[in-house]
Amino acid sequence: MKKSALQIARATYQPKLPKALKGPMALQEGAPTQSVADQAEIQKLFPNTYGMPVLSFVASNETKTFPAINAGVILSGGQAPGGHNVIAGLFDGLKKMNKDSKLYGFLLGPGGLVDHKYIELTADIIDEYRNTGGFDIIGSGRTKLETKEQFDKGLQILNQLNIKALVIIGGDDSNTNACVLAEYYKAINAGIQVIGCPKTIDGDLKNEMIETSFGFDTACKVYSEVIGNIQRDCNSAKKYWHFIKLMGRSASHIALECALQTQPNIAIISEEVEAKQMTLDDVVNYIAGIVAARAAEGNNFGTVLIPEGLIEFIPAMKKLIAELNDFLAHNAEAFAQVEKAEQINYIAKNLSAENAAVYTSLPEGVARQLSLDRDPHGNVQVSLIETEKLLGEMVGRRLAEMKKAGQYNGKFSTQYHFFGYEGRCAAPSNFDADYCYSLGYTAAMLIGEGKTGYMSSVRNTTQPAEEWIAGGVPVTMMMNMERRHGEMKPVIQKALVKLDGTPFKTLAAAREQWAKETCYMYPGPIQYFGPSEVCDQTTVTLQLEQNGK
Amino acid sequence: MKKSALQIARATYQPKLPKALKGPMALQEGAPTQSVADQAEIQKLFPNTYGMPVLSFVASNETKTFPAINAGVILSGGQAPGGHNVIAGLFDGLKKMNKDSKLYGFLLGPGGLVDHKYIELTADIIDEYRNTGGFDIIGSGRTKLETKEQFDKGLQILNQLNIKALVIIGGDDSNTNACVLAEYYKAINAGIQVIGCPKTIDGDLKNEMIETSFGFDTACKVYSEVIGNIQRDCNSAKKYWHFIKLMGRSASHIALECALQTQPNIAIISEEVEAKQMTLDDVVNYIAGIVAARAAEGNNFGTVLIPEGLIEFIPAMKKLIAELNDFLAHNAEAFAQVEKAEQINYIAKNLSAENAAVYTSLPEGVARQLSLDRDPHGNVQVSLIETEKLLGEMVGRRLAEMKKAGQYNGKFSTQYHFFGYEGRCAAPSNFDADYCYSLGYTAAMLIGEGKTGYMSSVRNTTQPAEEWIAGGVPVTMMMNMERRHGEMKPVIQKALVKLDGTPFKTLAAAREQWAKETCYMYPGPIQYFGPSEVCDQTTVTLQLEQNGK
Repeated sequence: MKKSALQIARATYQPKLPKALKGPMALQEGAPTQSVADQAEIQKLFPNTYGMPVLSFVASNETKTFPAINAGVILSGGQAPGGHNVIAGLFDGLKKMNKDSKLYGFLLGPGGLVDHKYIELTADIIDEYRNTGGFDIIGSGRTKLETKEQFDKGLQILNQLNIKALVIIGGDDSNTNACVLAEYYKAINAGIQVIGCPKTIDGDLKNEMIETSFGFDTACKVYSEVIGNIQRDCNSAKKYWHFIKLMGRSASHIALECALQTQPNIAIISEEVEAKQMTLDDVVNYIAGIVAARAAEGNNFGTVLIPEGLIEFIPAMKKLIAELNDFLAHNAEAFAQVEKAEQINYIAKNLSAENAAVYTSLPEGVARQLSLDRDPHGNVQVSLIETEKLLGEMVGRRLAEMKKAGQYNGKFSTQYHFFGYEGRCAAPSNFDADYCYSLGYTAAMLIGEGKTGYMSSVRNTTQPAEEWIAGGVPVTMMMNMERRHGEMKPVIQKALVKLDGTPFKTLAAAREQWAKETCYMYPGPIQYFGPSEVCDQTTVTLQLEQNGK
Repeated sequence: MKKSALQIARATYQPKLPKALKGPMALQEGAPTQSVADQAEIQKLFPNTYGMPVLSFVASNETKTFPAINAGVILSGGQAPGGHNVIAGLFDGLKKMNKDSKLYGFLLGPGGLVDHKYIELTADIIDEYRNTGGFDIIGSGRTKLETKEQFDKGLQILNQLNIKALVIIGGDDSNTNACVLAEYYKAINAGIQVIGCPKTIDGDLKNEMIETSFGFDTACKVYSEVIGNIQRDCNSAKKYWHFIKLMGRSASHIALECALQTQPNIAIISEEVEAKQMTLDDVVNYIAGIVAARAAEGNNFGTVLIPEGLIEFIPAMKKLIAELNDFLAHNAEAFAQVEKAEQINYIAKNLSAENAAVYTSLPEGVARQLSLDRDPHGNVQVSLIETEKLLGEMVGRRLAEMKKAGQYNGKFSTQYHFFGYEGRCAAPSNFDADYCYSLGYTAAMLIGEGKTGYMSSVRNTTQPAEEWIAGGVPVTMMMNMERRHGEMKPVIQKALVKLDGTPFKTLAAAREQWAKETCYMYPGPIQYFGPSEVCDQTTVTLQLEQNGK
């Protein structure tokens, strides 16, 4: 692998660890815990891993000795910056406890455990990947570990390799499954510990005990860099409205964080759209109103941030999509006979009046996408909808109407962007490099202490790394019961944007000014070597959340 | 303006200057020059500014004194990183010569000169913009300075403000016009010097005397950062082919430079496509062949870089577009009556057999774009064609055929990206910050020496800034006669990618390996503060070109 100058320079970075992890340490146990809701059901489902205490490591004078242990690690789901550092921290932690410990990596996600595909992660391999982005050290995948067959199949290879502990690095679903696996292995006395690590750029895996998921910091900084650059261009050329869609399937944390970093003219937050029961027209009118107000001041340019998941948060669109899924599932054959030019009419005729009205209000391309591009289960592929173009086109139409009515007299030219893959595998920021390394190192220590069903947790993260608090949080503590595919399941509560939280309230307080004036901020690219205030600050979201406490 | 931490830290950066510009200096004049071609015509058109010598500044022991002078500056055309530093260098140079000199900025491009819109650029304003991206200090615009009326109108305001020298920062066309203006003002004895500065991220304004245009370095680094991140993602998930279109309207310098920095599986270079007389099908087959070869090794993922201007370099597409423009111009009314579902057939029937075959081979969306989206002159808007999707879709179709024929047995899922606005206004890299500041400072020195019709030139740029050679190149030296809008005009020769140049040959020598293996490089974000090998290296293109000399 030919390395860039930055990769070579960055390879020597030694991630910072919390003070307590630097020398001999002791484990402090808190009081027994409860799940956030549905305590009785969760306890029943997790008799062996429910109610465990929160754990914290503290510095100690007593040096412990640990036996050698073999551990395994899995990367689950979408990439997030810092995954390699979690593995490096885990490796270093295991070796620190006992130099004869070994680490195996299962290949291409949880599927590697089930299919017995793995490599031993030696020091040479680990060193190649320190402080780099990507999950390519062992690859990732989306296989869900859910069935007894998978668990038993995995156990075979774990036993064969004499692996006593498994670390699963993933989002809310993967950590839920990690806990189910921990519970199962404990129930059958398999002698395998399972520890989770909180990963996702989406930022929706967080709660009282998990301050942030790793990767969110770096990904938001990459998106904010390019949004800032676009805004500088926008403010120089003064002739385009840039509609910028940002990854983050359900929650709008990324759009919110990027808005706080870059101060665009408009930022749509899905959770607010849902709470206010806004229609698609409401969103379009909101944007068109701001475009017109800026045009009245001679400013025919601006920026709009749009969260990827918006469509599904608009109640009327949600209803339309549900009816479409249902209708097309039951009328697939008849629909296949309809001529292309007639398809939209055909569907509109067969929908309820309310949904037909929404459907026919959509630009043709989007209406087609909704009725044609379906996943193997027959469902609309919402992620394929180019929401940024949908909104841009509808705003354009609305402005044309307003022009006729004498309410608007500007020019409206658009540019469209979608950022997602640009940030998921960036080399981790100093924050993510340190945070991930600490999470991995903590996971090793939890393994050393014989724990299972825990998520590695590093808290107090708005303080310098020295003062971070490392420990473990029982996964069951974060669970509640939710309906998934028609069944009630125990799951980690997804953290959506809180409309009464400081980050959103900060946006809400500033956005009228940002809409009217041009208050763009230009964060620039992630810096690894400069002054601390440039290199080491974490997200605005995390700072506002923690300082607001 | 609320500033980001990086902006605040970066504001204090003092751009490096060539040694000769740091103290007292003398001007060295070379021999009389000739235009690159069409010497007789060019000389006739530029009797007052033709044949002037190349100029270089050298360190001297004699301190000169300069009278105070008022100068004006214009930003012309698309944004490029470093424009603010050209202006800062110009300002500092003027003040160095005489502290009572003044600098005026004309607003929103050349139009500001014609319409008498300007501001005085004081030290306070300049300091706000040092080392920042964007052209927002005075804005830019695309008005072409071409007519005697414009020149005379401009002269009024120049005289009114007692401006004796005008610096025009722009691409090849703007510098051509700067020279026409210099010639005119000299011919009428207006007493106004005109100096050009070579700007464009496209990299197509370069020649023997102008090693690179400013902004190319920074823009390519931003694109390479995100391409690298996408490649790391691609190599982690191992499930997508990413089709990435890159800005750069005609020349493929950006695509070539980004390919050299990131080592993608495929990089299309328009100049090669044209030279080899490739059809669209040839390009599609080339890509599909590589996709199939990788699939045979189990690698159903990859990256393709596509230059924005590709379509117009494919001879068959060029012919089709020419006939379409002609046909639709003469049959606009009849075409407007055709029903939407019939439009494509209608056009195909009326084209020559050869062009009809190309037209009907296009995906429907592209065919529609070609026949519907027309500019005010009735021409196809080639820049609106989503070439990345066009190629992705056609490759998908070709692979389906190959699958039927048993020549391919893989999965082909695509992601599309277009990068342009993300890089044009990035904060300049150290190279561009230094280079631009030096170009501006040199422009001031040329003004001090009473020169006109020159372009500011800084050479020897692959050496440390200390050793750069600052001077001036007569614009006429770079000119030849070309047909533009049906008329022969004197223009600066546009520099396309040379297929016998070292940069392209380096790509050509490596690309088979890059296609087959996965050799991705990850340059990471521009660094401003780290070790010199990370922060100060310029483009691979420039290094290969200069070291190959």
